[in-house]
Amino acid sequence: LLPASSLLKFLLKVTNWHHPNFHAYYPTASSYPAILGDMLSDAIACIGFSWIASPACTELETVMMDWLAKALGLPDHFLFSSGGRGGGVIQGTASEASLMVFLGARNDAIAKLQAAEPQGEPCELLARLVAYTSEEAHSSVERAAKLAFVRIRSLKTDEKHSLRGDALKQAIAEDRAKGLVPILCIATLGTTSSCAFDNVRELGQICETYFSVNFLGSNREGLWCHVDAAYAGSALLCPELRNFADGIELADSFNFNPHKWMLVTFDCSALFLRDASKIVEIFSADPIYLKHEFTGQPDYRVNTGKFRWGVDSAPEDLVRHEVLRHQRASGLHKKGEFEDQQSGKTGSKHVSLAKEFEALILADGRFEVVEEVTLGLVCFRLKGTNEATEALYRTLREDQRIHLVASKFHSSGVYFLRFVVCSSQCESKDIRFAHSVIMEAANKLAK
Amino acid sequence: LLPASSLLKFLLKVTNWHHPNFHAYYPTASSYPAILGDMLSDAIACIGFSWIASPACTELETVMMDWLAKALGLPDHFLFSSGGRGGGVIQGTASEASLMVFLGARNDAIAKLQAAEPQGEPCELLARLVAYTSEEAHSSVERAAKLAFVRIRSLKTDEKHSLRGDALKQAIAEDRAKGLVPILCIATLGTTSSCAFDNVRELGQICETYFSVNFLGSNREGLWCHVDAAYAGSALLCPELRNFADGIELADSFNFNPHKWMLVTFDCSALFLRDASKIVEIFSADPIYLKHEFTGQPDYRVNTGKFRWGVDSAPEDLVRHEVLRHQRASGLHKKGEFEDQQSGKTGSKHVSLAKEFEALILADGRFEVVEEVTLGLVCFRLKGTNEATEALYRTLREDQRIHLVASKFHSSGVYFLRFVVCSSQCESKDIRFAHSVIMEAANKLAK
Repeated sequence: LLPASSLLKFLLKVTNWHHPNFHAYYPTASSYPAILGDMLSDAIACIGFSWIASPACTELETVMMDWLAKALGLPDHFLFSSGGRGGGVIQGTASEASLMVFLGARNDAIAKLQAAEPQGEPCELLARLVAYTSEEAHSSVERAAKLAFVRIRSLKTDEKHSLRGDALKQAIAEDRAKGLVPILCIATLGTTSSCAFDNVRELGQICETYFSVNFLGSNREGLWCHVDAAYAGSALLCPELRNFADGIELADSFNFNPHKWMLVTFDCSALFLRDASKIVEIFSADPIYLKHEFTGQPDYRVNTGKFRWGVDSAPEDLVRHEVLRHQRASGLHKKGEFEDQQSGKTGSKHVSLAKEFEALILADGRFEVVEEVTLGLVCFRLKGTNEATEALYRTLREDQRIHLVASKFHSSGVYFLRFVVCSSQCESKDIRFAHSVIMEAANKLAK
Repeated sequence: LLPASSLLKFLLKVTNWHHPNFHAYYPTASSYPAILGDMLSDAIACIGFSWIASPACTELETVMMDWLAKALGLPDHFLFSSGGRGGGVIQGTASEASLMVFLGARNDAIAKLQAAEPQGEPCELLARLVAYTSEEAHSSVERAAKLAFVRIRSLKTDEKHSLRGDALKQAIAEDRAKGLVPILCIATLGTTSSCAFDNVRELGQICETYFSVNFLGSNREGLWCHVDAAYAGSALLCPELRNFADGIELADSFNFNPHKWMLVTFDCSALFLRDASKIVEIFSADPIYLKHEFTGQPDYRVNTGKFRWGVDSAPEDLVRHEVLRHQRASGLHKKGEFEDQQSGKTGSKHVSLAKEFEALILADGRFEVVEEVTLGLVCFRLKGTNEATEALYRTLREDQRIHLVASKFHSSGVYFLRFVVCSSQCESKDIRFAHSVIMEAANKLAK
């Protein structure tokens, strides 16, 4: 059994994701309103697994999700207050959001196929479904497909690592010719590997028009178009950064992670749906001990299962609520910036710091930047074969003064280093320091 | 957008799950070590999605899960330190734990079937799988089956609402005759509806011996035997309450929710596995930006997906660690009690309070108790038809002084009220108060 000194040892040895020299993965958030919110939430310790279990929990979440959608400039069809079937719900992670979307699209498609072919065995129908994503999408998309037992195709991207309409159109035609039923396309805004952006307008239009073809001779709707903006989504708070989300009004669902870049502590992925009933449906199972006289109310989940339509624990909304209220009070996001309370700095400052790093790297002719720098990630490498960059990575890991990770384009096999501005404490001097460490390592290798 | 006064309104209107007159569902926990742990965890705000992302996170969780298993007296094969393939992992809820088990058993079975029948299409093989549970199991088990797309049969229980070996044996024989492949049996210790206990020894023995029959002519192992002890599991801290878990050494996996009855704030379900690799397998997808030179280390999840083998966020282990250390320091669980720090009371006191309530209810000849009182739940009703108890429930809900919910046995259709000792603040006087409110309502109805 652990003595107290082990806890201290833990605190000393835990990886410091908030150090200004931490440039790996993507940022994760923390802020004092989030900590206060968690304290409140822990003290209340109330479980909102259905509306009746604590009506105020569900209602706070619906209000807050609408508020968040408005702050990001998302289309009205994602709002509860639009009066349609739309609305948002908090999931743990983007992977969980993807899984929900897969399960929703799967069950929706099977229900419609069964209506058209009442003799069809569910597993036979399942075998015909197919979903699409980009070859550069996060591995969690492929994993969600595997968990949902739905076939997925990773489609080729263009030279900017963006999935385009033509690739989707061609894949749909090929699969229809094989008798398969395309049900879902997951587009990514800001891939994990290189922060590439799929063309949501082109993909959304194809998803929308697909069923003018009237495949199956039924009134089935088009493909479900999901947009995963786990990292990049927070940037939509800044109107001047919204270009990358062109066509978002065509999306049937959208998710992003406030825990990445929006001051909310892990875990919090916001999932918005055009038709929430498609997710609610997959969890229908209403035992009597959870029935109540207000069953018309929006139940986030009518059971202690995590997977109704998903909310972990509504009082945790307090955390998000407090953080959002705080950001709003500052008014900074109205000026196109999302503020970091700890440092008084802003998210869009991360973008400027990334551009600063890019300029420093490009000043040395040995290096190249392999993806357009849109937000806080710079993908760079030593020109030439992968081996040189691999050696540079090993040297930097041994050096240990800065922390970053490597990646590789699926399409070209080009290996590169990912430099992410992560910490809210990160300053221009830290960028210059990281650059000097990289140059030192490159010079050492050159000898 | 919400003004600050709305937050205050929320605090005033949120359902108080910790009020001594709250007797609905099952308890949910809160404690000052849990709050301190969350503060620490929020301040560190480090993501442990793989060993390399923060080695100390993963290592704390492995140490803590072993410690927890030992405190509960679980079999050695669930320990990392046993040197086998076993180990524990934190999930959000019991529903999530069930889903993991379904996915693990499904993929394991399909891999083995494919080895025996290389021509088999995955969806055709999937169509042949079948899992079993009790008709009194929580709806989340059925839902997990639905999400995993695996057929499930809810088997009849005996007169004590306990699933017995004979029922499982018969179901397996019936299904094998139909060409189906039984893969999993989920037993419940402490059902949500009435806190009934399945016979784990009988079920475990059948799961274990099933493949002496050598179905499929391969070396496939037996059925996976999972034990869901979401509520009751915490009681295993008290050696004198362990009788209900007889046969637990036959289980291939086990989960319980420390957030229910063990001072840890929501959400925390501890899942232990005899062979963790079967869960790790279902999430295999290792992109390069997550590869590292220490890939032999136990990765709780090698991706930002929630669903690797599942941990939400390793620093949250601090919460559990602090609570557990605190409980240990008190030494109370060694005396057969698990302490509640807020009140100085103990979990086993909840059991005595439930017995006190049972005695009070039974003192009035109009009432009957419909399930043996083992832990903190008393299932009672007015003798006769369901209508009388339904009317009593409506009266109590209108009265609003105490809060409890109703349920119904799946087998007999008998409707009853669930009285749970939930709050750590609950005293004998609160039990007598609740009893007096119920008597008042019954007398009012009798007029």
